[in-house]
Amino acid sequence: MSLPRIAVDAMGGDEGVRVMVEGAALARRRHEKFNFLLMGDRAQIERALESHPGLAGAAEIRHCDRTIEGEDKPSQALRRAKGTSMGEAVAAVKRGEAGAAVSAGNTGALMAISKVALRTLPGIDRPALAALLPTLEEQDVIMLDLGANTECDARNLVQFAIMGAAYSRIVTGRERPRVRLLNIGTEAIKGTDEVQEAAQHLRDASTLAIDFDGFVEADKINRGDVDVVVTDGFSGNIALKAIEGSARFVTDLLKSAFASSFRSKVGFLVSRPATELLRHHLDPDNHNGAVFLGLNGVVVKSHGSATANGVANAVAVAARLLEEDLTARIRQDLAELGDHLMTNGSANNNKIESDAK
Amino acid sequence: MSLPRIAVDAMGGDEGVRVMVEGAALARRRHEKFNFLLMGDRAQIERALESHPGLAGAAEIRHCDRTIEGEDKPSQALRRAKGTSMGEAVAAVKRGEAGAAVSAGNTGALMAISKVALRTLPGIDRPALAALLPTLEEQDVIMLDLGANTECDARNLVQFAIMGAAYSRIVTGRERPRVRLLNIGTEAIKGTDEVQEAAQHLRDASTLAIDFDGFVEADKINRGDVDVVVTDGFSGNIALKAIEGSARFVTDLLKSAFASSFRSKVGFLVSRPATELLRHHLDPDNHNGAVFLGLNGVVVKSHGSATANGVANAVAVAARLLEEDLTARIRQDLAELGDHLMTNGSANNNKIESDAK
Repeated sequence: MSLPRIAVDAMGGDEGVRVMVEGAALARRRHEKFNFLLMGDRAQIERALESHPGLAGAAEIRHCDRTIEGEDKPSQALRRAKGTSMGEAVAAVKRGEAGAAVSAGNTGALMAISKVALRTLPGIDRPALAALLPTLEEQDVIMLDLGANTECDARNLVQFAIMGAAYSRIVTGRERPRVRLLNIGTEAIKGTDEVQEAAQHLRDASTLAIDFDGFVEADKINRGDVDVVVTDGFSGNIALKAIEGSARFVTDLLKSAFASSFRSKVGFLVSRPATELLRHHLDPDNHNGAVFLGLNGVVVKSHGSATANGVANAVAVAARLLEEDLTARIRQDLAELGDHLMTNGSANNNKIESDAK
Repeated sequence: MSLPRIAVDAMGGDEGVRVMVEGAALARRRHEKFNFLLMGDRAQIERALESHPGLAGAAEIRHCDRTIEGEDKPSQALRRAKGTSMGEAVAAVKRGEAGAAVSAGNTGALMAISKVALRTLPGIDRPALAALLPTLEEQDVIMLDLGANTECDARNLVQFAIMGAAYSRIVTGRERPRVRLLNIGTEAIKGTDEVQEAAQHLRDASTLAIDFDGFVEADKINRGDVDVVVTDGFSGNIALKAIEGSARFVTDLLKSAFASSFRSKVGFLVSRPATELLRHHLDPDNHNGAVFLGLNGVVVKSHGSATANGVANAVAVAARLLEEDLTARIRQDLAELGDHLMTNGSANNNKIESDAK
């Protein structure tokens, strides 16, 4: 098992220190063997810890007097990283002082800093951002990339499929996760050249421990019959946000419909347990914690607007991936897979996306 | 006003002639001045018309003994078009026998056949598929392209913006529709080169009668503060299906939640009017009828799985666009706009996408 210590960027996120520290405290109660490095303003962190003596006893504060801002471009963030709460959280993973880093800050900055500090695993050209989404079945579905890479070639997509499958094996316990490429149709002739070429490679790669069966359309992501949905960061980000927005749209409609008549209001009160269940199932906090896959270390991104409960879920994702040693598993899969990786060696490796992208 | 006659491909769609004819009959009741050309198997159409004497008196049957199949590639469909119900419906528009064609058949085939028969408007390189989506406000939002063009350059996106705005003016009555490019963030540095270049052009085009203000993310499509969402066909198709799938996901969850306890069932019955309103608002039939914009004529695509009511809505879209003379309006906008169109003359014009795309 990897080092049970998690570095938390206490300054990231819309709500600041209080929420990050409370989230860590909640997570600590669920994962008692973990302890924490809290990066950020010492005085503010100490004040926040006063309400959480359990965490205070299991946390070390590293004072950082600077932060990465939401508007910092990745290249600026890279130059400024040293001494910031985000930069130092990732640096702690690099130095082996923590097994994982969690931040609710600027996603592009976190990606750039993590990639430069931790480097990609051998055989991986680019890391990808992966998250768990709810389905109609018990099991969540993993989707990647969610925006780390605006444009992807077939090789990137194949590598994402392998990394997503490794993550899915931990989450589902399934030996051969059901992996599909996101596309605009399920017929073989549909989609871009990149998607078609990636599909061909995954079909040919019969030794891979994945159940690959072509394409999935965006309306089937949540049906519960797919474990990993692979796509480029542009489409993945659009699919993820469209799903979130549409779910919110329906629940907003529902609220206004229920508020529109006395009879509906009564109905709503009587059926409260059902609507609470719905609310719980759709609450983004319950699915908080996107993972950068493909790095030498675990980095988890929490939603900027997550509540303490959401932050706790993001920290729990980091804890679980450390307990199950995700990085070692991906490394092992990669070693076994060799030529299916389609890696081009070092040409693209560890290059940072230009800010213009 | 254009010719008030609509050509209906009576053989397209999963449900076949009965649903298409019933849909036309329903639409006819709402738009009494329209009459119809029904393309397809004469015996089947005559049988279906027996239940709809109103439509029978306002319809002419053109017997076609062949159909375009769901699995036909666009290039195959083009070769086979003549004499098929779909091909003849579009040909009727070309010959001026009808103002619009409606089909529930193979989308790629309908696109290819329409483009070759009707040609794109001067200044338009490629037609785009546009549909109305529900929002939290009274007014629907138009999104395009929804899958006609897998890959688009900046010029295509600018032309889509102009065509979408013309459609929106008819639907909303708004002189300067609020147009946004779909992107993975609202900051100027986000997105692909194509999206950024298109944004720059639309920002510079101050004489355009549109309210352009950069980007919209996929979770904001349904909020009701945007009239036209412009994107390439790959992302647009993914966004559209993600929205549909997520809405269905939430309503399925809701159904199972309400079915899970006696108390919830009672609540559900009491609040039935609210949930009926929701069902009505989200029913895809109520938003059926996607339009191919940018052609010399109106072509409307009905969902393959639409009910008669859905088909009626698709026919009503065609009727409305004829009444308001959409094609003349787009032509007029294009004439006024000149250099903002970024057209490259005839190089790409009227080229059919290869089947491999």
